[in-house]
Amino acid sequence: MERIAIIGLGLIGGSIGLALKAAGIRDIEIAGVARSRQTAQKARKAGAIDVEARDAADAARGARLVIVAAPLVTTRDVFAEIAPALAEGATVTDAGSSKALVARWAKESLPAHASFVGGHPMAGKERQGIDAADAELFRGKPWVISPAVDASDGAIPLVVGLAQAAGAEPMFMDAEEHDSYVAAISHLPLVLSSALFSMAFGSAAWPELAALASSGFRDTTRLASGSPEMAHDIMTTNRENVLHWIDRFEQELRRYRAAIAGEDAKHLLGTFMRAQIERDNYLADGPPMRHQAQALPKVSLSDFLLGSRVAEFMRKQEEIVRAAEDRAEGKRP
Amino acid sequence: MERIAIIGLGLIGGSIGLALKAAGIRDIEIAGVARSRQTAQKARKAGAIDVEARDAADAARGARLVIVAAPLVTTRDVFAEIAPALAEGATVTDAGSSKALVARWAKESLPAHASFVGGHPMAGKERQGIDAADAELFRGKPWVISPAVDASDGAIPLVVGLAQAAGAEPMFMDAEEHDSYVAAISHLPLVLSSALFSMAFGSAAWPELAALASSGFRDTTRLASGSPEMAHDIMTTNRENVLHWIDRFEQELRRYRAAIAGEDAKHLLGTFMRAQIERDNYLADGPPMRHQAQALPKVSLSDFLLGSRVAEFMRKQEEIVRAAEDRAEGKRP
Repeated sequence: MERIAIIGLGLIGGSIGLALKAAGIRDIEIAGVARSRQTAQKARKAGAIDVEARDAADAARGARLVIVAAPLVTTRDVFAEIAPALAEGATVTDAGSSKALVARWAKESLPAHASFVGGHPMAGKERQGIDAADAELFRGKPWVISPAVDASDGAIPLVVGLAQAAGAEPMFMDAEEHDSYVAAISHLPLVLSSALFSMAFGSAAWPELAALASSGFRDTTRLASGSPEMAHDIMTTNRENVLHWIDRFEQELRRYRAAIAGEDAKHLLGTFMRAQIERDNYLADGPPMRHQAQALPKVSLSDFLLGSRVAEFMRKQEEIVRAAEDRAEGKRP
Repeated sequence: MERIAIIGLGLIGGSIGLALKAAGIRDIEIAGVARSRQTAQKARKAGAIDVEARDAADAARGARLVIVAAPLVTTRDVFAEIAPALAEGATVTDAGSSKALVARWAKESLPAHASFVGGHPMAGKERQGIDAADAELFRGKPWVISPAVDASDGAIPLVVGLAQAAGAEPMFMDAEEHDSYVAAISHLPLVLSSALFSMAFGSAAWPELAALASSGFRDTTRLASGSPEMAHDIMTTNRENVLHWIDRFEQELRRYRAAIAGEDAKHLLGTFMRAQIERDNYLADGPPMRHQAQALPKVSLSDFLLGSRVAEFMRKQEEIVRAAEDRAEGKRP
């Protein structure tokens, strides 16, 4: 019997627990802890965890894999809290939306006999909390994996196995690189979405705007309903990248503004047409880099927990990481 | 047997035809025409129209109600084409996303013996064309009705009946007012959506961004996949309002940028929290002004086609329009 700990049982932590259970992994026990006992009870009743731990250290004690899914800004404290309890060879991962800062915190706080492998499952929902947890939340979604340079050979496949068990597509990525990319396609859209809703709501005409708003407005502002705490944590832990992409977006918006203000109908049409065609291609073909996920050998999390097939996995994985590093060089946006 | 004409059989025109058929209105014949004969044939086979007309004038001839659902910038030409064919007392409506310019075109081109009642069903889809047409497209969605000042008593309920038959919620609104409002909650989101996709696609890191993009990016850029022709038509026919709201949005984005760049964590949290709370309230309570639609008597389109219950309807409607005008005064954003 191997122990897996989940620290934080909100939407993400709860969904990870449910997904592991749904994957039917043999001989594991999931210990969980949340800020409130009520949440942990709910998680146990929902089948997301087997055991309610007293606190984070208690959950982590003796665990082979510790998954930190607490609010991003609290991750530093969680690391400090679990550090003394971590077993020899334990693997710690997280689910935070920023990776560079979390990696620094791990380096600061976690003991040398444990390995840190950062993780970021790219999935979310408007609704938060354990009640919104869903075993299928990660199905087909990217799950970024960003190992510390000194992570042990056994640690990386364990986190890959976790992502695969949840049905996600694991992708290796450097932490700094990850932070710049998600700022563009996740954090910036969150800012735009919230700012758009705020602008409309702040208008004297809001009653009329609200009455007229249809599915377009609803979709474009969906991210504005996400957890404000998470938005705060994202913005403060990935500030420079978010500011960079806000500025890039403003340039692009001005390009659109000029096309709309101008008299060149063909240019205006072309501006919208290019985005339409390329988005349709993107949806039809799937993302160009997803093959990385497909290239990883699919093995069960229990194989990794038992330590088998690690060598084969590591060979494959090294090739993939090297390719990703080659691509990343000189490609920082 | 009363004739209804649909000119333009794309997503909107085709869906209107299907919705009218699904509503089971007695004794009507729907004549339709599209730019290509193939489209009209498809529409007839799908049951969206009964008769393929030779051209717009042929479709409009003898019709009690003429629905123009052709591309917005071609509406002027369609009006000129159908003008000589319109029967005494015919009602003309449209489905364009801008209303003030279309109202001017109607005034220029349509004969005095016909009535113009502008319409804008606030519904759409990523996919365009007759193949995407759907009888349920308008269900529960706002359908703006913007009558010309000289529209006859019988004309307005006919268009309200059309909207109700399609399952939509008819809302009276002044054309200029409509154009400003939709610029904020429909046209601006389209610009933001297209600009966001364009920014990401234009980045050197696009392969990585695409691999990481999840449902948040997909939802926020959904409108970018709409018809570029429609985007072009919207921007050129509602230019000043769109530019106004782009500028308003830029101010709001800068407010968010300052909150993110600043050190005041409470202010940053509050910025996102206000939008989150207000959006959740908005989703929970429904739009504050929708009661207008509920206040209109529900009657069948055939009653209106037969001219019955018009007096009762007009009384109700006048109250509602007066209330809307009172609200609009001094409230232009």
